[in-house]
Amino acid sequence: MGKEITSRESDYSQWYIDLVKKADLAENSDVRGCMVIKPYGYSIWEKMQQALDKMFKDTGHVNAYFPLFVPKSLFEAEEKNAEGFAKECAIVTHYRLKTDPAKPGKLMVDPEAKLEEELVVRPTSEAIIWSTYKKWIQSYRDLPLLINQWANVVRWEMRTRLFLRTAEFLWQEGHTAHATAAEAIAETKQMLDVYAEFAETFMAMPVIKGKKSEGERFPGAVDTYCIEAMMQDGKALQAGTSHFLGQNFADAFGVQFTNKEGKLEKVWGTSWGVSTRLIGGLIMAHSDDDGLVLPPKLAPIHVVIIPIFKSEEELNKVSAKAESIAKELRQLGFSVKFDNRDNLKPGFKFAEYELKGVPVRIAIGSRDLDNGTVEVARRDTKEKKVMQMDAIVGEIPALLDSIQQTIYQRALAFREQKITKVNTYDELKKVLDEKGGFVSAHWDRTAETENKIKEETKATIRCIPLDAEQEEGKCVYSGKPSSQRVLFARAY
Amino acid sequence: MGKEITSRESDYSQWYIDLVKKADLAENSDVRGCMVIKPYGYSIWEKMQQALDKMFKDTGHVNAYFPLFVPKSLFEAEEKNAEGFAKECAIVTHYRLKTDPAKPGKLMVDPEAKLEEELVVRPTSEAIIWSTYKKWIQSYRDLPLLINQWANVVRWEMRTRLFLRTAEFLWQEGHTAHATAAEAIAETKQMLDVYAEFAETFMAMPVIKGKKSEGERFPGAVDTYCIEAMMQDGKALQAGTSHFLGQNFADAFGVQFTNKEGKLEKVWGTSWGVSTRLIGGLIMAHSDDDGLVLPPKLAPIHVVIIPIFKSEEELNKVSAKAESIAKELRQLGFSVKFDNRDNLKPGFKFAEYELKGVPVRIAIGSRDLDNGTVEVARRDTKEKKVMQMDAIVGEIPALLDSIQQTIYQRALAFREQKITKVNTYDELKKVLDEKGGFVSAHWDRTAETENKIKEETKATIRCIPLDAEQEEGKCVYSGKPSSQRVLFARAY
Repeated sequence: MGKEITSRESDYSQWYIDLVKKADLAENSDVRGCMVIKPYGYSIWEKMQQALDKMFKDTGHVNAYFPLFVPKSLFEAEEKNAEGFAKECAIVTHYRLKTDPAKPGKLMVDPEAKLEEELVVRPTSEAIIWSTYKKWIQSYRDLPLLINQWANVVRWEMRTRLFLRTAEFLWQEGHTAHATAAEAIAETKQMLDVYAEFAETFMAMPVIKGKKSEGERFPGAVDTYCIEAMMQDGKALQAGTSHFLGQNFADAFGVQFTNKEGKLEKVWGTSWGVSTRLIGGLIMAHSDDDGLVLPPKLAPIHVVIIPIFKSEEELNKVSAKAESIAKELRQLGFSVKFDNRDNLKPGFKFAEYELKGVPVRIAIGSRDLDNGTVEVARRDTKEKKVMQMDAIVGEIPALLDSIQQTIYQRALAFREQKITKVNTYDELKKVLDEKGGFVSAHWDRTAETENKIKEETKATIRCIPLDAEQEEGKCVYSGKPSSQRVLFARAY
Repeated sequence: MGKEITSRESDYSQWYIDLVKKADLAENSDVRGCMVIKPYGYSIWEKMQQALDKMFKDTGHVNAYFPLFVPKSLFEAEEKNAEGFAKECAIVTHYRLKTDPAKPGKLMVDPEAKLEEELVVRPTSEAIIWSTYKKWIQSYRDLPLLINQWANVVRWEMRTRLFLRTAEFLWQEGHTAHATAAEAIAETKQMLDVYAEFAETFMAMPVIKGKKSEGERFPGAVDTYCIEAMMQDGKALQAGTSHFLGQNFADAFGVQFTNKEGKLEKVWGTSWGVSTRLIGGLIMAHSDDDGLVLPPKLAPIHVVIIPIFKSEEELNKVSAKAESIAKELRQLGFSVKFDNRDNLKPGFKFAEYELKGVPVRIAIGSRDLDNGTVEVARRDTKEKKVMQMDAIVGEIPALLDSIQQTIYQRALAFREQKITKVNTYDELKKVLDEKGGFVSAHWDRTAETENKIKEETKATIRCIPLDAEQEEGKCVYSGKPSSQRVLFARAY
């Protein structure tokens, strides 16, 4: 199949792109910066959606759908939010094409069909949603409003990379409204916890929960919380964010409610989102030079069964057994592929499913039938083991569990090893250049220092960890006092 | 709660809008022609999606995602398709806003950020998908390609109506590629069958399968198949379409494959879709003057339990029993709401859940506890029955089944009564004006006659039914010979 994946060591960036393309996850489209998510990649997204959607519903949220377009006048109502996204908005200005009189068979924008007011293709939906919430919220009885939306959004990025940064991407965006600041902050933190649990339990990707510095905050938020993950090349990836919006959008759209005492109060808000970017994180957290390594909880195929045969007769015999194993596994709820293509060699198939990150491979040949055995290979460690055919179905659940755990523990050990405490600016620069990862350092909490460090090292403050201990120290850059370390890293 | 639903008899159109709004299904947004799908309405869409998605996967399809935008040059490649949608396309021309020097705090489109090539917001995705398929299809081994996409699309409609016709709507669009015409036609018909089965089994809405006349065909299709439903006001609703595209898109985008003999051939295509319009059909097929009537298979809440109480003590006693019934029903997979709000009267709650179309209502009072009974009301027939408390959980599955069947049979009887055979043009006009429904008449198969009848009666040919018998006859308009009746109707 001509795998030819660039090794991580020789070019991590190219390795990533090779993997995305050769494992059939996604590709660039004919539209600048927009990707096509191919069926195999999309099926990972579906698994993510299912798990997240259940977690959202279990925490009391419901789904709804708001318009793709935001009239410019609504878009600009919350000024900081508008300013933050203005530079990367796709704008609809016309609503009709007509035949081009100059070019037979071609179309042109009909100048007579110009919109009175331009429409922004949503880069995020706070504006359109809060302009709607104004109609939905009158009394404290209407609160809290706990709504999520699965949608596509568009941010006109100049430098794009499949999954990690694309002009259009798929995501979910939660938008909640509350009667008190305390409730809204609790919601913001609850959803951060949901994201962290999803990342660690389903993606097997350890994350650090923290708060963003003011400079890295979501435009229009009072506080932005985030989960930060560590990729194999030592760069950080922001995997999800949860924003406490204060009363900023209530102010911008005049959203008020009558409290129990009959007085008018302004509503408090949150918003939170994760996107198809997570697929990029999933790839970069676990995969190797042979291809994807997928955690079983998100793998589209759990087990692939590959027959080893020399004749059609042998294939028939092996197939009967393989199909009965597949059937039993499917009854247990696993997704199983039996690859009986007769024009490809087993070795080719082995490589293909390694590339695609299928957690467990079972090979069955004629000799196995005689011996009552199968060969089982796990993708994460590449271990192969001969197992009793009768026992295999019973062993699979624990094996998949073990793979899920192993992948997580490996990523956790890697991440832990990639957190380095430093006490001087020289150390910080040295660690960034030589080791990468998160650098834990004191910072004086000024934007000035943050910007200087960013300019000089290309590292940003990924977060102020929520669980960081209070510790007297001095800012590595300015020497001013600091009470807590923050995490710096170069990031995607 | 101030229901105030207009009766169907006094104003069917207004009744529909009242229902959509008062049952909290959807509302108009601040964006012209675009709706907000509210949580209750969206949960019906989620149920539809789940059922359809499973049917698509069971017939071998996989999901993927293609860009929202279509570059104008791709959009215009298949000329008929482009011509068909050109008049209703939202066009992105710019990719940036900037602060408006004339108006502090306001934004304007940045004239320097004009796109070299305009982007059409997809009204349908054949163009962008076939331009991608060109890269994916080389050999007969790459076929068939069976892909579906869940997405939003935009068609700039001038007259919109919630769910039935909106500028943006949600849908699924299947796009398949095949080696032979026969295979593609079989796929087209298979998906029509899937839609019909979904409409009848899940929506409890009988449909007629047929082919569209040339004039009503999807732009770019060789043949369009459809399912047509009958609404309570005697107007037809096109509920789903499945198109045999021939080689039109293969031609437009140069999609060829090497067959088994090593020769190049052009690929054959299909596309098929249903949309949030189905929610409009669902409402209009079954609901009454008190509100929605939802078939249990798509109802977000299957059973609502309402406590009848005079004191907190009574409420507590009733709650214990209600919650145990709710728990048992949930374990059986049903969605149950126990409405224990203490600020609303039972009668108010009864009306609210009737409005929302919850199939089964259980009321429990103190006296019921003493008698070991509950009062069960079904939404479809409004029948109330006192049942044994111990038996209720066991009875619910059959009761929901019976409701599903009753709704379907009622709609079927209505639809059958609304098909009228006519043999003259006068009869056709009379039936359309006085009775409505489908009018089964002979037609000479010319566009001229079709257009004349449409102009004069506002009725269109809904379809040429697939199961229509061959029958010699004369066109009701021209008197020319015809071999089969077709169905005329006024339609949504």
